[in-house]
Amino acid sequence: MNTIGWIGTGVMGISMCGHLRRAGHEIVVHSRTRSRAEPLLQAGARWAETPADVARDAHIIFTMVGFPADVRAVYFGEHGLLPVARSGQIFVDMTTTEPSLARDIAATATARGASALDAPVSGGDVGAREARLAIMVGGDPAVFAQVLPLFQRLGQNIVHQGPAGSGQHAKMCNQLVIAGTMIGVCESMLYAQRAGLDGPTMLQSIRSGAAGCWTLENLAPRLLRHDYAPGFFVDHFVKDLGIALAEAERMQLALPGLALARQLYIAVQAQGHGRCGTQALLLALAQLSARNPQDRTRNEN
Amino acid sequence: MNTIGWIGTGVMGISMCGHLRRAGHEIVVHSRTRSRAEPLLQAGARWAETPADVARDAHIIFTMVGFPADVRAVYFGEHGLLPVARSGQIFVDMTTTEPSLARDIAATATARGASALDAPVSGGDVGAREARLAIMVGGDPAVFAQVLPLFQRLGQNIVHQGPAGSGQHAKMCNQLVIAGTMIGVCESMLYAQRAGLDGPTMLQSIRSGAAGCWTLENLAPRLLRHDYAPGFFVDHFVKDLGIALAEAERMQLALPGLALARQLYIAVQAQGHGRCGTQALLLALAQLSARNPQDRTRNEN
Repeated sequence: MNTIGWIGTGVMGISMCGHLRRAGHEIVVHSRTRSRAEPLLQAGARWAETPADVARDAHIIFTMVGFPADVRAVYFGEHGLLPVARSGQIFVDMTTTEPSLARDIAATATARGASALDAPVSGGDVGAREARLAIMVGGDPAVFAQVLPLFQRLGQNIVHQGPAGSGQHAKMCNQLVIAGTMIGVCESMLYAQRAGLDGPTMLQSIRSGAAGCWTLENLAPRLLRHDYAPGFFVDHFVKDLGIALAEAERMQLALPGLALARQLYIAVQAQGHGRCGTQALLLALAQLSARNPQDRTRNEN
Repeated sequence: MNTIGWIGTGVMGISMCGHLRRAGHEIVVHSRTRSRAEPLLQAGARWAETPADVARDAHIIFTMVGFPADVRAVYFGEHGLLPVARSGQIFVDMTTTEPSLARDIAATATARGASALDAPVSGGDVGAREARLAIMVGGDPAVFAQVLPLFQRLGQNIVHQGPAGSGQHAKMCNQLVIAGTMIGVCESMLYAQRAGLDGPTMLQSIRSGAAGCWTLENLAPRLLRHDYAPGFFVDHFVKDLGIALAEAERMQLALPGLALARQLYIAVQAQGHGRCGTQALLLALAQLSARNPQDRTRNEN
């Protein structure tokens, strides 16, 4: 059986790589912080000192790192993957990153006789742990067909979206919808609170109809408990919305809702909540209209 | 059996009143345009020339009209309901209108020994026809309990939200969430189109996860068919979002997403699509970034 390479052992990567290992694949792993790969190493995965070392040992290499700069370093940097890529190898970047970067990786891989897919996911840490991720794939359909059995170990809704970069574009569409629903849900929760409604009773009325959405089902109850634990980090969402905005600008497409969402999430970061879950948007919106204690005293006297 | 009064026989009102009639209630009906009440009259409902005439004949009176000004005229105007209200009578306004107006109606009714509920609905013409409306009710809980058996003829998710005006507030929460999801979904669809993704394939990836929402399930497929038929009129949505903005301002609550949504929907109206469904938001967003034909010629040459 061919050896599988895995780079990136963050909260999602470590679960995903574990699924492939348990499926019986030999794994060679690299991560910026070796200690985070320990559970995999103890289970029998081999350590590689650099991405290039992973590429030398493996036939299919998955990457799941943080930001586009990390992806660039892993693929194009010193001791990176692509300088040592060889014919027939397949690179699969599952990081959410720039569609243009995905196209660059694919073009460089192709020039060396290798192939690359962009395959960002949705479903978060829980989806990764339970192998229920949605995987959006861009690249050569024949290469997609080759990797599909491995994707099926990681997720359930696995869709080929088109040529290189299309997986990243589909992920941007996903984040755009989430940005809109998150603004709607958080503004609705704030409105309810100010209007003196009972939160759960309000949700009971609106969740079953045209306002119904995943955010209302899953994050609104957390907001009622003042639970801002991630889910999905604000810092990562700001990155994703920035990629979407830049791509939209490149396509000469103005998206005012997206622009507003990103500004509000930058405010969430500014208030120190970058490592909270995306539902912390409520805090920035609440802060906007926080009553000035002086004014309040004046009004109440 | 006590006679029920019904005022307003638009696309929703006529279905709703029909359910009460078929449940065996005697109906006295009034509408701005008598011809639209004809199906009810032919089925045995009695016609009343004015709202006051309805109030004189009926014990419980429902109103389902268009705009807050219509509600004001029906309740407070010459030949309106409240000047002739008598002890024990119940008024139920199912129009989506201002929470402050709902409170005014309730206070005036109470001063005459009568009662009033605000009970706006969600679910549209289909929900009205199939008696599957969500009904959000504000007012005295004892009065709510009295009217509940009638509400159950009209809808399924019937929730008492609190004192007078609370039903309207809950409806505003509903519209706030819809405004956000609609921006997210329409911007996502435009992005996909510009990025060269296949619309249905993109939807297949994102509908099952954290982006999942009613709008994506029900309106995105219509958008792919360029189908802008209502559903729910843009003109009515602009009204609702205006009420929500005014109420939020009254509560000193800044809601930037809501403000943006309303501006975009005003643009939809400006472009002549006020009688389209709310999914026509896509048209205004597309118009924002429409390519100038002259520029295009220049670029392509």
